[in-house]
Amino acid sequence: MKHSESPIGIFDSGIGGLTVANAVLNTLPNESLIYFGDTAHLPYGDKSPDTIKRYCSVITSFLLGCNVKLIIIACNSASSVAFEYVQEIAKQHDVQVINVIDPVVDYIHLNKINNVGVIGTRATIGSNIFPNKILHLHPNTRVESLATPLLAPMIESGFIKGDISKAIIEAYLAEPVLDDINALVLACTHYPLIKKEIAEFYLDAHREVEILATNEIVAQYVKKVLESSDLINKSSKVQHQFFVSDYTDSFEETTKLFYKEEVFLKHSRIFEEEA
Amino acid sequence: MKHSESPIGIFDSGIGGLTVANAVLNTLPNESLIYFGDTAHLPYGDKSPDTIKRYCSVITSFLLGCNVKLIIIACNSASSVAFEYVQEIAKQHDVQVINVIDPVVDYIHLNKINNVGVIGTRATIGSNIFPNKILHLHPNTRVESLATPLLAPMIESGFIKGDISKAIIEAYLAEPVLDDINALVLACTHYPLIKKEIAEFYLDAHREVEILATNEIVAQYVKKVLESSDLINKSSKVQHQFFVSDYTDSFEETTKLFYKEEVFLKHSRIFEEEA
Repeated sequence: MKHSESPIGIFDSGIGGLTVANAVLNTLPNESLIYFGDTAHLPYGDKSPDTIKRYCSVITSFLLGCNVKLIIIACNSASSVAFEYVQEIAKQHDVQVINVIDPVVDYIHLNKINNVGVIGTRATIGSNIFPNKILHLHPNTRVESLATPLLAPMIESGFIKGDISKAIIEAYLAEPVLDDINALVLACTHYPLIKKEIAEFYLDAHREVEILATNEIVAQYVKKVLESSDLINKSSKVQHQFFVSDYTDSFEETTKLFYKEEVFLKHSRIFEEEA
Repeated sequence: MKHSESPIGIFDSGIGGLTVANAVLNTLPNESLIYFGDTAHLPYGDKSPDTIKRYCSVITSFLLGCNVKLIIIACNSASSVAFEYVQEIAKQHDVQVINVIDPVVDYIHLNKINNVGVIGTRATIGSNIFPNKILHLHPNTRVESLATPLLAPMIESGFIKGDISKAIIEAYLAEPVLDDINALVLACTHYPLIKKEIAEFYLDAHREVEILATNEIVAQYVKKVLESSDLINKSSKVQHQFFVSDYTDSFEETTKLFYKEEVFLKHSRIFEEEA
C-alpha cells in the first residue's frame, strides 16, 4: 500500500520530463522519484492516440508495481490523449494522476490571465487541448496557439544560447498571432531550458509577457495534492531511480542538459516482448 | 517467385526514405515501389541495434510477402546495424538487399575522391560506419565526420529556404573539421532536400566541393543491380504503394516535402501485436 514514504512515479516519452522531475525535487526535496522515459517509442507526438495509450498502460502498470503514491504524466502528448485512461488504471490502486496540462489551465484560471499564447510541438498544438481546456474554465480568455516544432530538436542539439537559437526563437515568437498575448504557456517539457532566452526576447521587445513554465506550475500543483492527501514525505531517506525503455549513450549525455545532477539510466525491459 | 515485373521494396524509419524512392523512380520510371515507413518507431537513430534489428525483421518479412524483387534499406541507422541481418532473411527468398551506405562508399572509391566530409545524424556519425567503410576500400582517403543533428528536424519543420536554415547550414559547414574536404556525403535521407542550399554555401565560399547526395547515388546503383540480374521492368504497368506503421495527418502533409506527387499512406498493422 502507498504511504507518504512511497516514491512519486513520473513518465515521459523521453527525457524532456526530467525538467518536470527537476522542478518537483526543487519544490519537494524530501520526495523519492521513479522516472520512466519511454525512449524506445519516442517521440509520442507523431504516434496515434491508440498507440500512445498502449504504451502508457504498460508504463503505468510498471510504476504501480513500484508502489508509487502518485503518477505524473510529464508528457504533453500522453497528457492529451491518455490521461483519463491512465487515471482509470491508477484508480484501481487508489493512486492519483497528474498531467502537465490541467495544472497550467488552473493557474491561468486562478490568476485571471486574459490573453494567452501557447507554444508547443505540432502534435500538442494540433490537439487544441490547451485552448479547449482554458476556454472551458474561463470562456472570456483569448487563446492563440502556435506550433514551434523546431524548438525541441534545437534544444536537444545543444543550440540553447547563441545566435541560431536566438534567431529561431525570434522567428517563432515574432509571429503576428502572438502579438497581443500577456502570458505564454511553454507547452513542451523541453522549453523550460530556454525560458531565459524567451524572456529576453520579450525584454528586448519591451513587452510584458508572463512566461508560464509548465514544470514549475506542475511542481506546485504536486505539492498541493500531496499536502491535501497527507502524503508529503517527512522522512529524509530519499532515493531516485531513472528507467528508459531503450538505452543509448547519447541519452545519458543529453540527460545532463535536462537534469542538474548526473543521472544513471537503467534499461527497463517492460516492452521487450514486443514484435 | 520474383520476376522483372515484381515491385522494389524500400523501407525507412519514417518518410525520409521517400527521397530515395523519388530518385529511384526518376532513374527507373518503369518500376513499381512498395514503400514502408516505420512511423510507429521513428526515429531509429535513438534506438539500440537489437531493437532496430527486431523492427527490420518484421518489415523485411512484410516486403518479402509482397513478392518484392529487391529490398532497399533507405535508412542510415538500419543500414548501419541491420544490413547483414536483413540480407540473411532476404537471401532465403533469393532477394538482394541494397543499403544507403555501400553505394556511396563505392562511388567514392571508383571516383578516387581523397578528402571526404560526412554529415549526418548523431547516430550515423557516432557509428563511424562511413569512415570505416571508406578507409577499408580506399585507405589513403582523408575522412572527416560531423554530426549535424538539427538539419533533419529543420527540414521537417519546413525551414528549407530562408535565413534560419542558411544560418544553421552555415554554422555546421563552417566547422573547421570540414575545411579541406573536396566532397561532402549527405549521410541522411533528409538532406537531399537542402542539397541546393548546401551547394550555395560552397559557392558563396568560392570552394569546389562535390555534394554526394545518397539518394541519387543509390538510384544509379539500383539500376546497375537490376540490369545485371536482368530484373529491369520492361512493362509499363506501374503501381506504387506506401505503407506506414502508424498513421497521423501530419505525416501525410510532410510527405509532400519529400515526394513530388501526392502520396496516399496506408496504415499497416504488422506491429500491432506489440505491447
